[in-house]
Amino acid sequence: MDTTLAYPSIPTNKIPVSSKSTIASKKEHTKYVYTFGNGKADGDRSMKILLGGKGAGLAEMSALGLPVPPGFTITTQVCTWFTNNVGKYPPNLDLQVTESIAAIEQITSTRFGDPHRPLLLSVRSGSRVSMPGMMDTVLNLGLNDTTVQGLASDSRDPRFAYDSYRRFIQMFADVVMGVPHHHFEHILEQHKRACRLKLDTDLAVEDWQQIIAKYKQKIHSEAGRDFPQDPHTQLWHSITAVFRSWSNARAVTYRKLQNIPNDWGTAVNVQAMVFGNMGDTSATGVAFTRDPSTGGNALYGEYLVNAQGEDVVAGIRTPQQITLAGKAANRSNLPSMEEVMPGLFHELNAVRQTLEEHYSDMQDIEFTIQRGKLYILQTRTGKRTARAALKIACDMVDEGLITEDQAVMRVDPGSLNQLLHPTIDRTAERHVLASGLAASPGAASGHIVFSADEAERLAQGGEKTILCRTETSPEDIHGMNAAVGIVTSRGGMTSHAAVVARGMGRPCVAGASDVNIDYNANFMEVCGRILQEGDIVTIDGGSGEIMLGQVPTTEPELSGDFSRLMGWADKWRKLGVLVNADTPEDCRKALEFGAEGIGLCRTEHMFFEGVRIVAMREMILAKNVEERRKALRKVLPMQRDDFAEIFRLMEGRPVTIRLLDPPLHEFLPHTETEMRTVASAAGLSLEYVREQVSRLRETNPMLGHRGCRVGITYPEVYEMQTRAILEAGAMVGKETGVDVEVEIMVPFVGVEAELRIVKESIDKVAEDVLVKGKMVHYVVGTMIELPRAALNAGKIARQARFFSFGTNDLTQMAFGLSRDDAGNFLPTYEKRGIIEADPFVHLDEEGVGELMRFAVERGRKTRSDLKVCVCGEHGGDAKSVRFCHKLGLDCVSCSPYRVPIARLAAAQAALSSEL
Amino acid sequence: MDTTLAYPSIPTNKIPVSSKSTIASKKEHTKYVYTFGNGKADGDRSMKILLGGKGAGLAEMSALGLPVPPGFTITTQVCTWFTNNVGKYPPNLDLQVTESIAAIEQITSTRFGDPHRPLLLSVRSGSRVSMPGMMDTVLNLGLNDTTVQGLASDSRDPRFAYDSYRRFIQMFADVVMGVPHHHFEHILEQHKRACRLKLDTDLAVEDWQQIIAKYKQKIHSEAGRDFPQDPHTQLWHSITAVFRSWSNARAVTYRKLQNIPNDWGTAVNVQAMVFGNMGDTSATGVAFTRDPSTGGNALYGEYLVNAQGEDVVAGIRTPQQITLAGKAANRSNLPSMEEVMPGLFHELNAVRQTLEEHYSDMQDIEFTIQRGKLYILQTRTGKRTARAALKIACDMVDEGLITEDQAVMRVDPGSLNQLLHPTIDRTAERHVLASGLAASPGAASGHIVFSADEAERLAQGGEKTILCRTETSPEDIHGMNAAVGIVTSRGGMTSHAAVVARGMGRPCVAGASDVNIDYNANFMEVCGRILQEGDIVTIDGGSGEIMLGQVPTTEPELSGDFSRLMGWADKWRKLGVLVNADTPEDCRKALEFGAEGIGLCRTEHMFFEGVRIVAMREMILAKNVEERRKALRKVLPMQRDDFAEIFRLMEGRPVTIRLLDPPLHEFLPHTETEMRTVASAAGLSLEYVREQVSRLRETNPMLGHRGCRVGITYPEVYEMQTRAILEAGAMVGKETGVDVEVEIMVPFVGVEAELRIVKESIDKVAEDVLVKGKMVHYVVGTMIELPRAALNAGKIARQARFFSFGTNDLTQMAFGLSRDDAGNFLPTYEKRGIIEADPFVHLDEEGVGELMRFAVERGRKTRSDLKVCVCGEHGGDAKSVRFCHKLGLDCVSCSPYRVPIARLAAAQAALSSEL
Repeated sequence: MDTTLAYPSIPTNKIPVSSKSTIASKKEHTKYVYTFGNGKADGDRSMKILLGGKGAGLAEMSALGLPVPPGFTITTQVCTWFTNNVGKYPPNLDLQVTESIAAIEQITSTRFGDPHRPLLLSVRSGSRVSMPGMMDTVLNLGLNDTTVQGLASDSRDPRFAYDSYRRFIQMFADVVMGVPHHHFEHILEQHKRACRLKLDTDLAVEDWQQIIAKYKQKIHSEAGRDFPQDPHTQLWHSITAVFRSWSNARAVTYRKLQNIPNDWGTAVNVQAMVFGNMGDTSATGVAFTRDPSTGGNALYGEYLVNAQGEDVVAGIRTPQQITLAGKAANRSNLPSMEEVMPGLFHELNAVRQTLEEHYSDMQDIEFTIQRGKLYILQTRTGKRTARAALKIACDMVDEGLITEDQAVMRVDPGSLNQLLHPTIDRTAERHVLASGLAASPGAASGHIVFSADEAERLAQGGEKTILCRTETSPEDIHGMNAAVGIVTSRGGMTSHAAVVARGMGRPCVAGASDVNIDYNANFMEVCGRILQEGDIVTIDGGSGEIMLGQVPTTEPELSGDFSRLMGWADKWRKLGVLVNADTPEDCRKALEFGAEGIGLCRTEHMFFEGVRIVAMREMILAKNVEERRKALRKVLPMQRDDFAEIFRLMEGRPVTIRLLDPPLHEFLPHTETEMRTVASAAGLSLEYVREQVSRLRETNPMLGHRGCRVGITYPEVYEMQTRAILEAGAMVGKETGVDVEVEIMVPFVGVEAELRIVKESIDKVAEDVLVKGKMVHYVVGTMIELPRAALNAGKIARQARFFSFGTNDLTQMAFGLSRDDAGNFLPTYEKRGIIEADPFVHLDEEGVGELMRFAVERGRKTRSDLKVCVCGEHGGDAKSVRFCHKLGLDCVSCSPYRVPIARLAAAQAALSSEL
Repeated sequence: MDTTLAYPSIPTNKIPVSSKSTIASKKEHTKYVYTFGNGKADGDRSMKILLGGKGAGLAEMSALGLPVPPGFTITTQVCTWFTNNVGKYPPNLDLQVTESIAAIEQITSTRFGDPHRPLLLSVRSGSRVSMPGMMDTVLNLGLNDTTVQGLASDSRDPRFAYDSYRRFIQMFADVVMGVPHHHFEHILEQHKRACRLKLDTDLAVEDWQQIIAKYKQKIHSEAGRDFPQDPHTQLWHSITAVFRSWSNARAVTYRKLQNIPNDWGTAVNVQAMVFGNMGDTSATGVAFTRDPSTGGNALYGEYLVNAQGEDVVAGIRTPQQITLAGKAANRSNLPSMEEVMPGLFHELNAVRQTLEEHYSDMQDIEFTIQRGKLYILQTRTGKRTARAALKIACDMVDEGLITEDQAVMRVDPGSLNQLLHPTIDRTAERHVLASGLAASPGAASGHIVFSADEAERLAQGGEKTILCRTETSPEDIHGMNAAVGIVTSRGGMTSHAAVVARGMGRPCVAGASDVNIDYNANFMEVCGRILQEGDIVTIDGGSGEIMLGQVPTTEPELSGDFSRLMGWADKWRKLGVLVNADTPEDCRKALEFGAEGIGLCRTEHMFFEGVRIVAMREMILAKNVEERRKALRKVLPMQRDDFAEIFRLMEGRPVTIRLLDPPLHEFLPHTETEMRTVASAAGLSLEYVREQVSRLRETNPMLGHRGCRVGITYPEVYEMQTRAILEAGAMVGKETGVDVEVEIMVPFVGVEAELRIVKESIDKVAEDVLVKGKMVHYVVGTMIELPRAALNAGKIARQARFFSFGTNDLTQMAFGLSRDDAGNFLPTYEKRGIIEADPFVHLDEEGVGELMRFAVERGRKTRSDLKVCVCGEHGGDAKSVRFCHKLGLDCVSCSPYRVPIARLAAAQAALSSEL
């Protein structure tokens, strides 16, 4: 009879297990140890901070009456005490542990160290948040030369007993005594070779006994002391080792990266052992209460017969499916648990039911079956794909398990990216050549090309291309649009390539520094491998990977769940969600995704096309105002048409148009041919053009002659743009019968006078266009993208009806960080935890956020109805959107594909702040 | 008898002149008009705000009993009322004016409009601060067809009377009726030609009468109405014209540029006319109570016999000296007033005495002598050269007129530049070719060269050169040092050229955009003129002018007055004054000028010399850490020697050394030859070098891989530098027996972790060098030059013992303004008043200053004894130093030649804040 290891479910009252009040009242000491088991528990799920995730889950399940092996949790408080007091424990802890062990002994009818029916324990870490594999674990604790014999006779399986003992010795030596694993692997290998044995299962009891003797010798010679036979010594050393592992190097690094405070500490869970490796009626497995991939409402998971938990994780044996459905879906030819152990399967299914109803969420559980008896070892909220998250949230609302607002909180906004773009088929094999930044999500395959023109040429023939460039510039836009994906070897998350790609919804891997492109020879070298133009690659913009050949992808499919959830989100959110859109395609996509208007329409992209760029260059190189006006007159009708098209599509929704922003520098001709073209178009000498081009080059264009500085030194440019905007507005208003609402946004303002001057000029053009009485309304506002503007917002607001934070530039200025040049050190900074995250991805709340706070406060003090928005890339980042909500902004604006993310994040922010 | 125009000094009591109380009590009305004359006055010198500078001076002089023609001042309040009420006047003003005219009539025994003894008036503007020539003036008011006859008979000079009348008509028509001058000049010219007369003095009474008739016709035809005959109409129109002129375009522009608020308004001074053009016993002149050029304690000035005030200013006639000494000094052959009118000269000298004793400062006065009687028309504080200011201040202390602290307040710190550098001889003729920014003061002549190497080569042969470059870079340092002056065609006040030149004390004209340099052809084109290499030019870095040929200069000469005043300043100032010094020469110069230590020692200049730059490039291009260390080992002993030399010179004074700051980019080889040299030195292939150079190029180097970012990604660099510093310190400490105090400054910190990491590494090197017990002490601090660092100062101060504001970079970041590229729009911004001043010259208090305020507050909250300094260029700008004092900084640091300016400005700031 294997009574040692089966824990009777009959409660016993001899020892006060729920000793919370007892200890507290008797000794007036802090309670450091929380017991669970036998349908009871000192703790519950609300006590994650004290008991860690695992401990709280075990307590909760135990109190629910689920079959949890009894045990106790030493609190995270002890970890902190231990760390602060250089390895000492608080007084009274030993007594509480002793009492708790007695409680386990009582339930299991075993005794710790008993030669006949020894209690065996597991010692596991468990912190507030999961830190997978970072800390240590000891299993089978309590075995020694004597108790192993008890286990052997009690389990009627001496081979199992000695195998368990040698496993324990090996684990203990490694974790506690610092004798590395490989020494023991080596001994085992030597023994097998000497005895000509192949598999571990070929070893007999005697083999294990010999090996155990060698293990002990090795420990003595390596550690200079013996493996301890006393179970209490074993236990305390193991507890100490787990607490110590909280401060080991990899855990500290992990916490730094994950931004987990060091003073949270870990709890230690000590629990009676159960074994899944006691023959064919034993098993171990992991299960999800719903399908984590599709969200399907059925048990889903894998198990292994006659195995321990590690074996499932280690992947040595192929795991079997739990359900028949799973077996079918995975085309497995191994029998499912549903078939092999139908009774236990139904028991597990009942546990699933209980946990889902209790937690109102999908759970990820670990279980072990020991000789036909089911034990649950862990429960926690299950990770899931975006698709599953959506389905589960909607289903649970339908099932009455959660409310609509709870459903909104259940989906990670960032994960929606998976739904909106094609993704690499999960089952496909990938040959990854190199990695870069996951700059714009989605997967795509195509022929490599190295120039925008080539991409366009091939696209006209129906070919799919991946445009590979060192970096991109506004002149590459047509090629980026023609390609199905973009790779750059330089630049960060807000480099030109990344920003434009996200806007277009093109997958993009940016800053792949292992890619070396040779434009002259038309090839690229990637980690020693040469790829010629025309070779096929696949890129995953969601992971940043570049793969050789055509890797199968899955097309996105927007389910009804998506729009249901979005609908709920819109009910809750306070922030308006607008789109950064420059083209009709952007507008259409954005409307489909629920944008409420345009928060940023950049006009510079409109200047790069064919004829326009020549006119633009003529303008810049003009010798006087008249010549400049002449050049601009060529651009006016084209720009007016662009705006008209956008106004038509937006059907009266607000449209914020930013006047020309980039440095003039960017528009200059580069090649001899380009210079010749401009010279002849403008009637200038080639020499003059060359001279001017060299004169206008800038050392730091980001800080140069750009934004309203151009608008003030060349007022004709903004006048033309204003005229184009207002004429287009008046035209479309009349044509459609719907009033056009336009917000004219002046970029790069640092001083109130700049905005005043530009605003006066806009108003003057408006008078001239006779806007009054027509169906177009405009207001003037500004970007806040300079630290000085943020600090001076009180004055600037005198001239502005609205602010829009250009958080990309604001980040560049606040950090003194060029997004184009950050690649040489920013990755190192992230890796070493010098910065929490790339500030171009998640808004830097301490620096940039502080400037925003000042701007909002000071701006609204001057003008209480000032509309404040964000139109930097951060407008589509969930964490940043939350911050914007807290700051009390009116709206965020982001690229079309990020609109749903912003809507959901805004709703979650609103719901969170209500709590 | 000319009684009309001579005002009896006998007081009269018939009319209550000092009617302040009378009017106030009688009518309960605001007092708008303040009378003066006859030894009395309603106002005094404390009332500049209400009466303007001129009005307050007239009142004060009148009350002192000085011979001031009687009159009254209409207050600036009326101007504001007039502006706000669209050209209307406050009620009761007319009555107050009428009463005040009566008072003048009483004193002068004349009547306004009287046909026999008409009272004639002048109407002049006078605001709180001088706005020379910006507003309008009307003289001889009260003349008409009738009164002119009275003037003729009363003055016994009809020619004078009619000339005065036609002058009045002309001035009135221009100022009041808007009929421009040239019409009248034309009539006069035509008459002279018709009558074959040459000089105005050739015209007889009849001529003037005919001309007056024509003048009146012209007015009628041009203005559509007649010249008014009624004196009261004339008066009110003139008063109105002067008030209106406060708002004319050029006055508004002037105020915008000078930052004078529009609501200050001007006062109007109405005063009885006196004439200096009534024959040879009449005269007019301007005088200073001391020599404004040398400070000599004697009356100094010029006068003209038989002339009006305008004639002195217009410069048609050569003025005569007032004193015999002045006549000798100016080698004048015209008789002095001391000779010609000895009685009046002594009278004037007595006035001088009275005014100096009364004002305790040198005065600038205007006087008129009318037929042997002296009148004083204006007194104000006189402008003076720096040399004069110093001498006057010291002399007045010795004379017991002022105290030492008053003396300190009397010298403009910025003017000291004149004393420390050679200047263009004031009497020399200048042929100005082009102008740029006055980037570094001083004058120098030399042969034009276009390369640093050529400058050095010629310097070795003893030739003086002016180095002309499009812009300079650290590689040009040796040439800048070898040249006597520097010209650049690009860059602003804090461009590389400007900063380095100021540091070296070399004159520099920067950003002279009219200069086009052709390096290939070795010439430069300046406004169409070609200058070849070797041509001689003279530059004035104090005015920004570039002149052709050798223009004589005056060498600086530091008088005893200089050190006396500096000594007084040091007693008062609270701010420490340190120097930005990189070389032994800098240190010597700075100590001579009274620096108390080094606030910024840049180490990068040390990397550009001969062998070092090659080693530095090897370091950057190294393939691994070992190669990098190898390259750095070559630099270590050289850098150690540099530091040792500086420590020796500074003799235990604190030395702040900044670790390497500029972008790696700047050190890269450019030419093929340079690349070859590095490749062979480092054992690399030329191709690899070329590739790396292209890879390391940055789009915006200012925001790139620089400062502590280099120190963190290539920790070997800072380790080497730290080692060099500490080893040098230990060595010099031992050698000299004086402890070396070094502050190691980490540049470009944005995040606390950066400073923590670098500090840890510094401490580790210090342990290694075994600094403890040796005679070198170090602390670690940081530059605050990023907006984020300023806002995060609370956290950064945890790691820093001191802060030093790098206000150049902080300005660049706050404004998004590259100092190298600002030349294309910043001048426009200044000209149009969009910004008050170049923020690289005067600290932008509203933006950059706000960031500094946060940094000081937050930094000191974390660490109350945090030392805070400024080491940007602003540390040597008087206005910025004042701001630093107000912020409560501990010290400022500036280039050697600015140390005296900072000392004086700091003292003035301390004295001002005590008031």
